[in-house]
Amino acid sequence: MAEILSGKTVAQAAVNDVKARVDALLAKGVQPKLAIMRFGAEPDHVFYEKGAKRTCAQVGVACEVTELPADISEAEAINTLKRLNEDPSVHGILVLQPAPKQISAAALRYAIDPRKDIDGMSPINEAKVFEGDPTGFPPCTPTAVMEILRHYNIPLKGKKVVVVGRSMVVGKPAAMLLLGEHATVTICHSRTQDLPGEARQGDILVAAIGRAKMITRDYVKPGAIVIDVGINVDENGKMCGDVEFEGACEVASMITPVPGGVGSVTTIVLAKHVARAAEMA
Amino acid sequence: MAEILSGKTVAQAAVNDVKARVDALLAKGVQPKLAIMRFGAEPDHVFYEKGAKRTCAQVGVACEVTELPADISEAEAINTLKRLNEDPSVHGILVLQPAPKQISAAALRYAIDPRKDIDGMSPINEAKVFEGDPTGFPPCTPTAVMEILRHYNIPLKGKKVVVVGRSMVVGKPAAMLLLGEHATVTICHSRTQDLPGEARQGDILVAAIGRAKMITRDYVKPGAIVIDVGINVDENGKMCGDVEFEGACEVASMITPVPGGVGSVTTIVLAKHVARAAEMA
Repeated sequence: MAEILSGKTVAQAAVNDVKARVDALLAKGVQPKLAIMRFGAEPDHVFYEKGAKRTCAQVGVACEVTELPADISEAEAINTLKRLNEDPSVHGILVLQPAPKQISAAALRYAIDPRKDIDGMSPINEAKVFEGDPTGFPPCTPTAVMEILRHYNIPLKGKKVVVVGRSMVVGKPAAMLLLGEHATVTICHSRTQDLPGEARQGDILVAAIGRAKMITRDYVKPGAIVIDVGINVDENGKMCGDVEFEGACEVASMITPVPGGVGSVTTIVLAKHVARAAEMA
Repeated sequence: MAEILSGKTVAQAAVNDVKARVDALLAKGVQPKLAIMRFGAEPDHVFYEKGAKRTCAQVGVACEVTELPADISEAEAINTLKRLNEDPSVHGILVLQPAPKQISAAALRYAIDPRKDIDGMSPINEAKVFEGDPTGFPPCTPTAVMEILRHYNIPLKGKKVVVVGRSMVVGKPAAMLLLGEHATVTICHSRTQDLPGEARQGDILVAAIGRAKMITRDYVKPGAIVIDVGINVDENGKMCGDVEFEGACEVASMITPVPGGVGSVTTIVLAKHVARAAEMA
């Protein structure tokens, strides 16, 4: 049976770190602050926001939500974002995504100040992640994957890592962050021929394809470390990952659960990025 | 014996295409123009510039070289670049790299207008390549790799491609362009454990590690297609690639030579990018 890599444990350790950084800022008279922009009241967005606010409160980061009507025009949304860019009391900005249809994701991405873009949606931060420039903000989810690997002292240098999924929020940035740690990285996706066979090459397998329980034990090399980034709902309405957990557990040496894995680490990464943005400001 | 994938053939076909696009622009009264910025007179830079000018002349793209003293200050270099950004008669700008030590590469990359950045050094173009956004300009060398694969109708969808090398001028952007064609991509590098074994997984092997003849026949899966991006000088002072050509030829089904391979296609890609920049202006 695989050892469980608890995201909650990683998050707890990180809380102490981030709190110390926030305390140091407060001692200098700087109150780090996150501004969240939310369109309407999508339950997923409200849920994530709640978690972000809770974590910010834990470490002493102030958090202010700007709720915009779901039918707001693109121009008005961009104006709001620009006001937050220019507000010196705001160090980090999180735009809950996806935005309503009338607002182009590209318009938001190009408008946000890269120095406040703590979830890595600006092209400048994308480029920095691509380059391996550590001064940028990668998106919180792939950063959470890296935090888990680091916390459990999992060696990456020279290791074969297979990333299943090629999105800009997880798969591609995760691949670049892993490459930055000198892993050999394979990026697989829905069009990959023999996906189980490719996945079985991985000493470490990162599942970020967004399909409930798709990654069965057949995808897992015996002894591999499995990081499950998926957040899905199964046929019984229960939250589950991209990995079929029970089966994978019998083959893997270590595995992250869902819930309680990667998802438990993302909001503390968010808070840490706000602290870093405040330190750099 | 492997079939030789001639870069010269690919370039010749592309010349006709680009010439037609330039003619269409000229008919509208637009003279597409490339501005080359060169610091000092490094023989490599002068050599590449000569090739670029010859190709531009072939297709009707105007080409103007700004030669700057090798000891110019960063501020003056950036001012020159900004003048070219603002000059409406200039559609594409190529900064011959590396620049002298006193000029930071990042300063140049952030200063160039992404719409004129036809060799993909701006973070905006890096981000577009990373995202798979086709409106950006990827660097010319990985684009040349894609042109060769396309010209010879080599299928990529679902294929396993191994890229050896992770630079921002070749390895990483090549990996993203291949991923955009739905290949399964592994990025290897000097720290990869069992590099020959990883390389042998590739239906297509892209060698971009910058070491003369390092990729021997042991790295090549029987029947694989080998694209050699390297430009090195061997022990006898002769130009050679990253691939040990004779040995690889006996194992591969297709292979690009050096010289006469990828390097023969880069300047026509440059000219094509200038034409596209002029079309978009």
